[in-house]
Amino acid sequence: MSGAGQVNTGKLLGVGVGPGDPELLTLKAMRALGEADVIAHFAKAGNASHSRATVAQHLRADVTELALPYPVTTELPKCSAQYRDTIRDFYEQAAARIAAHLDAGRTVAVLCEGDPLFYGSYMHLHVRLAPRFSTEIVPGVTGMSGCWSAAGMPIAQGDDVFTVLPATLPEGELARRLADADAAVVMKVGRHLPKLRRALERSGRLARAIYVERGTMADAKMIPLAEKPDDAAPYFAVVLVPGWEKRS
Amino acid sequence: MSGAGQVNTGKLLGVGVGPGDPELLTLKAMRALGEADVIAHFAKAGNASHSRATVAQHLRADVTELALPYPVTTELPKCSAQYRDTIRDFYEQAAARIAAHLDAGRTVAVLCEGDPLFYGSYMHLHVRLAPRFSTEIVPGVTGMSGCWSAAGMPIAQGDDVFTVLPATLPEGELARRLADADAAVVMKVGRHLPKLRRALERSGRLARAIYVERGTMADAKMIPLAEKPDDAAPYFAVVLVPGWEKRS
Repeated sequence: MSGAGQVNTGKLLGVGVGPGDPELLTLKAMRALGEADVIAHFAKAGNASHSRATVAQHLRADVTELALPYPVTTELPKCSAQYRDTIRDFYEQAAARIAAHLDAGRTVAVLCEGDPLFYGSYMHLHVRLAPRFSTEIVPGVTGMSGCWSAAGMPIAQGDDVFTVLPATLPEGELARRLADADAAVVMKVGRHLPKLRRALERSGRLARAIYVERGTMADAKMIPLAEKPDDAAPYFAVVLVPGWEKRS
Repeated sequence: MSGAGQVNTGKLLGVGVGPGDPELLTLKAMRALGEADVIAHFAKAGNASHSRATVAQHLRADVTELALPYPVTTELPKCSAQYRDTIRDFYEQAAARIAAHLDAGRTVAVLCEGDPLFYGSYMHLHVRLAPRFSTEIVPGVTGMSGCWSAAGMPIAQGDDVFTVLPATLPEGELARRLADADAAVVMKVGRHLPKLRRALERSGRLARAIYVERGTMADAKMIPLAEKPDDAAPYFAVVLVPGWEKRS
């Protein structure tokens, strides 16, 4: 793999491992796993890392692992100063731990669910380390591609405007943006589902909306949102609104 | 691979081959290539297929190939009835040729640049064939993931609103949509670059915009759009506008 490089220092690899199906790993990600001296992975504190589980069968027996457990996830409100400070300190310390390996000349692969530079935690390490170390990104299949592929649902075509929205937006803004796009993916649905359902109704898109839970897992759940009987949803559920209305 | 299946008929696979780097093929795509009796691929008439070139080294010697050359690309205006009729007939005939193999019990893999259901030609075959045949989609790394990864540029984070826009939109609409999103990718830049440059200026995003040509090729060209000296661009050039302005 190429990179500007600096004398006597190692290399940082941001490695996309795809949406969770181990078969959706790329050949380049496989090579990165084979070449890395250190494999770093994020996880919710006390839980196993999803990205590590995706590649577990390909880890070398002699590889050094560096677990990066998030200090908080949903315990603190994201807008609080305490959350911001805690998570910033966590990324600073994680970057320092990786920098120590890079300074010692080691190649460090940071595993990333989906694609490293698309809504991924790796980006917080990248902006801290890329100015100092040789860096390479191995792109991955995104979680949303995994979802619409599992659903067999063409999402956008031709001159469609496609948008990705967090369900955390206020209802009026969600409705406005859904009406303004041809195709949309709404992320972080969780407790926002009742609000999102209302926004989809206001924007005239409820009939086309598909609710997806654990999109690329064997126990995936996909149903038209209009037919979903309740408004309970896990944080990582997504809603797909396909474009391409005039198909030919 | 799973699928509903119908007695005595074959299976249709929509196989994403990624943005062009043969190493960005997934293990699942490799398996699909190994299992397929027939490999179908689109190409501009008279040109070699990009998707075929990406997987050439993995094609079995005994596989049947089905080339699907587009009858027109830019010779006719896309809004003309003649273009619409010609391209619709082409997809009808391509679907019929694939259906003949499926009816004979063969597995047909249609190669797709990037991800099959995200702005891909395969979708025109999918909507015609999926109602009649067992179908599976193998998602792929999108061209845009390839571009921002090659540029080492974090594109969207946290609660960013991300949007994909065709440069074919009118200047005022481009400017409005660019100002309304945190992060954007503009596709099909080509002859629309002067207009797009003005829209980026009007929306206050020109300073952040990165111009990318042949994003995942060895001869990729990536420069801040503000520093690009002329307004000539190939059709497949893209412009990236990263979000995540308040990085921490």
